[in-house]
Amino acid sequence: MISGKNLIEGKWEHNSNAEQFQTVNPKTNESLSVAYQQASTDQIDLAVNAASESFDFFGSTTFNERVFLLESIQEGMHSYKSEIIATYRAESALPDGRANGEFQRTIDQIQSFIQLLNEGSFIAASIYTKGPDLRKMFYPIGPIVVFGASNFPLAFSTAGGDTISAFAAGCPVIVKAHPYHAGTSELVAQVIIKAIKKCNLPLGIFSHLGGKSHGVGSLLVSHPLIKGVGFTGSFSGGKALYDLAQKRNEPIPVFAEMGSINPIFILENKLKKDCSVLAEDLAQSVTLGTGQFCTNPGLIVICDPSGTINLAKKISESITDLELPPMVHSNIQKQYDKQLATLKRKDKLDALYSSESCSATIGSVKASKFLNDHSLTEEVFGPFSLVVECSSTDEILKLAASLEGQLTITLLGETSDQQVSKKLLSLLKTKAGRILFHGVPTGVAVIQTMQHGGPYPASTDSRFTSVGTDSIYRWLRPVAFQDCPNDLLPDALKNENPLKLERKVDGKMNSAAL
Amino acid sequence: MISGKNLIEGKWEHNSNAEQFQTVNPKTNESLSVAYQQASTDQIDLAVNAASESFDFFGSTTFNERVFLLESIQEGMHSYKSEIIATYRAESALPDGRANGEFQRTIDQIQSFIQLLNEGSFIAASIYTKGPDLRKMFYPIGPIVVFGASNFPLAFSTAGGDTISAFAAGCPVIVKAHPYHAGTSELVAQVIIKAIKKCNLPLGIFSHLGGKSHGVGSLLVSHPLIKGVGFTGSFSGGKALYDLAQKRNEPIPVFAEMGSINPIFILENKLKKDCSVLAEDLAQSVTLGTGQFCTNPGLIVICDPSGTINLAKKISESITDLELPPMVHSNIQKQYDKQLATLKRKDKLDALYSSESCSATIGSVKASKFLNDHSLTEEVFGPFSLVVECSSTDEILKLAASLEGQLTITLLGETSDQQVSKKLLSLLKTKAGRILFHGVPTGVAVIQTMQHGGPYPASTDSRFTSVGTDSIYRWLRPVAFQDCPNDLLPDALKNENPLKLERKVDGKMNSAAL
Repeated sequence: MISGKNLIEGKWEHNSNAEQFQTVNPKTNESLSVAYQQASTDQIDLAVNAASESFDFFGSTTFNERVFLLESIQEGMHSYKSEIIATYRAESALPDGRANGEFQRTIDQIQSFIQLLNEGSFIAASIYTKGPDLRKMFYPIGPIVVFGASNFPLAFSTAGGDTISAFAAGCPVIVKAHPYHAGTSELVAQVIIKAIKKCNLPLGIFSHLGGKSHGVGSLLVSHPLIKGVGFTGSFSGGKALYDLAQKRNEPIPVFAEMGSINPIFILENKLKKDCSVLAEDLAQSVTLGTGQFCTNPGLIVICDPSGTINLAKKISESITDLELPPMVHSNIQKQYDKQLATLKRKDKLDALYSSESCSATIGSVKASKFLNDHSLTEEVFGPFSLVVECSSTDEILKLAASLEGQLTITLLGETSDQQVSKKLLSLLKTKAGRILFHGVPTGVAVIQTMQHGGPYPASTDSRFTSVGTDSIYRWLRPVAFQDCPNDLLPDALKNENPLKLERKVDGKMNSAAL
Repeated sequence: MISGKNLIEGKWEHNSNAEQFQTVNPKTNESLSVAYQQASTDQIDLAVNAASESFDFFGSTTFNERVFLLESIQEGMHSYKSEIIATYRAESALPDGRANGEFQRTIDQIQSFIQLLNEGSFIAASIYTKGPDLRKMFYPIGPIVVFGASNFPLAFSTAGGDTISAFAAGCPVIVKAHPYHAGTSELVAQVIIKAIKKCNLPLGIFSHLGGKSHGVGSLLVSHPLIKGVGFTGSFSGGKALYDLAQKRNEPIPVFAEMGSINPIFILENKLKKDCSVLAEDLAQSVTLGTGQFCTNPGLIVICDPSGTINLAKKISESITDLELPPMVHSNIQKQYDKQLATLKRKDKLDALYSSESCSATIGSVKASKFLNDHSLTEEVFGPFSLVVECSSTDEILKLAASLEGQLTITLLGETSDQQVSKKLLSLLKTKAGRILFHGVPTGVAVIQTMQHGGPYPASTDSRFTSVGTDSIYRWLRPVAFQDCPNDLLPDALKNENPLKLERKVDGKMNSAAL
């Protein structure tokens, strides 16, 4: 049962004066029945105060207690799976395979943090005994606001990577549900608050607030007791929250992953050899999830001195018969249509190949034209990609140098292309969080070695990631204890090493007691 | 020989139109002879462009090459030691012991980064082979601007922790010399550029620019090719640079350590037992370096329900006969005198004990008054401390809860005070980067376990430190390589592990080849 209410400190609060909104089935464009209440200023303040009051207790919980919480959330997700999936599908119109896949990914993400907590070394305990006794470890930064992402109702939303990494760190979380899938979000919030009750943790460590207006998010980010923000979405949304957070009396860290055009470079010999296979693979990647992945390849740069290979046309031919699910909301579709219309109207490209069966579109343009029109580097969120045709190595290097920060860059070449690859790589290393040398950038493995983030404007701080267990470092800061009596030390730093952690003691890693 | 010119890409550039300024001997208040040229807008642009152009090469140097650079800087510092120390003393009037101590600390800091590079594990190489081949390591973020600090002409200036950590990371550095010790800074810059030439590294990796106006720093921080900023100094200076960096088209990380009042809490039984010894220790700590350390204890909170112990008076009695060197510049002294005058004029305190032999001053005020006057939490930079007298545990807890972020907090108690200690500690953990349980906060060990930084306003990002080898993480970001051919991988990630690094391979640490 979805209530449409806001969850504050364990209670689903009714507010008869609240502004209300509904979610929409993107397939039928019909509104779904539940009326969701927008959180009021008072409710926001209550939720943040509860989070702040619960922080000291939650921040000092043992790793085992946090594992129990995460496991309880996993169990709850499984118990309510059919209801969650049904609402997810109604609100997103994404196919069953995607829904189940994303559900499982969310469970797996939680599992990776359970393993991280069981292992414990992320806390980076280090001890120095040869001077003043100085012991350092990571400590959580405080209450975090997490914004649900429009394009991932589960994996980047209520119990997604931001919330779970913050819980693992020991930070209370307030989720601002995405209005496109408020029902899915509430169901997951029900699971989380039940898990918190089961674990006898303070109810203030999780609140769930709704709202269609930007006001709710703005008030949350501006609240003096909030200490960090996690966001995945558009550049305009992420940048607005970032700016708001920097204007506070106390600026706070905001990790906003704001997408990118994820350029793919295809070098001359690779293009000649694998043109048809590449066209197939790219068609799949561009249209995957109706182009609504942050790692969707929006730019394909090819080196074709002969000028004879029309890769854009080939990709579009591989798309022709595809039927794509609708985008997750008609607003996103409208924005996509508008951007394509501008490209057409202003005659910015050399060619534009539209599918007849879906809205997927592939453009092509000569590098010389592309390099003179910065607007062509803007993300077109959806199943669109632009093929840029370079006629020389110099042109491809010039184009690479002109790029802004990206989540991913893909560099496809044969061994015979390696001279160019090396030059390109030295440029591209400074531009992306992840560099691929095979395949396509869609599909993000949720493992410690993943990097999801990149130089601005792909994210607001390239030193962090929002995917993989290293994402926990967004919410941790080092605290050093000098000459602290053993019984006042956190367990991770006690002489007897009760957590059996690998610790750096006088420069050497070991798990021994002192 | 000090030229007074700006160093850009290996050349000391003369500009006959430059604004000029001189440094001053704070003891005599006489100007020293050299005329320093303020860097022009063109010179700033040249220096930044040279840094940016040298970045790809320098960022890809081996750890050994960077070790050679740091060792060459150490050697150069030793060769020019007498000239550096003489200029340091003339420009700062700090005593010989301090000058030599700070010189040695600077050498030791460089040594700690040499060890870090020799060991190599800071790069955090991790490899995952059980899916897409995904390998991750830290990569430098790009050219950094370092601001010399007024109070540490060597250890927090030209070849200080910010510059050396950035070099170790592989980042080019542009130093904005502090105008109070432009000569010391130039001599060290001469050492650095000679070392760079000796190592055959690109000359653009280091420039040294002077200026008395804020304009030079502002232009540097605003330059689009600058990717990070290191600053130690006042709140107003650090916050202004931070805000400037956030307003850029591309916001960049600024680590500004902006000082704090470093509260010391003395609990009831500790105060009763060690009152006289504490007064002696505190007198030393408050006046050390004429109170110009970031960790100077500006606030001493005592729990004295009997109301019979006048700790402020006792501390001031221990100071009476001290003779302190002048502050590093008359401007700092003027600001200090002005703040004290305001405290007196507005009758903000219960008592104010001034030394007759020096400008050290100890104030005292009841907690009830302190809690109602936020202005009393502002730092008075210099040999001043305020004793706040609490009459109950509740009052001391209330005061602790009201504190802003601090570099350090010291908690002094007997075993019999431990019930209060525990309660206090849970509050204080969220407020400081370093918590001491013995001694005084002045004196910062330069080791990996040190944390120098703290929640805002002590620093602009509590997740980093500016002292100790972990300060390198301010200038590094993770880059992941997916399915990268072995010969295109950085050495740290190659199959054969040529650097013999400890790497995380499929979740386990080892130094084996793949």
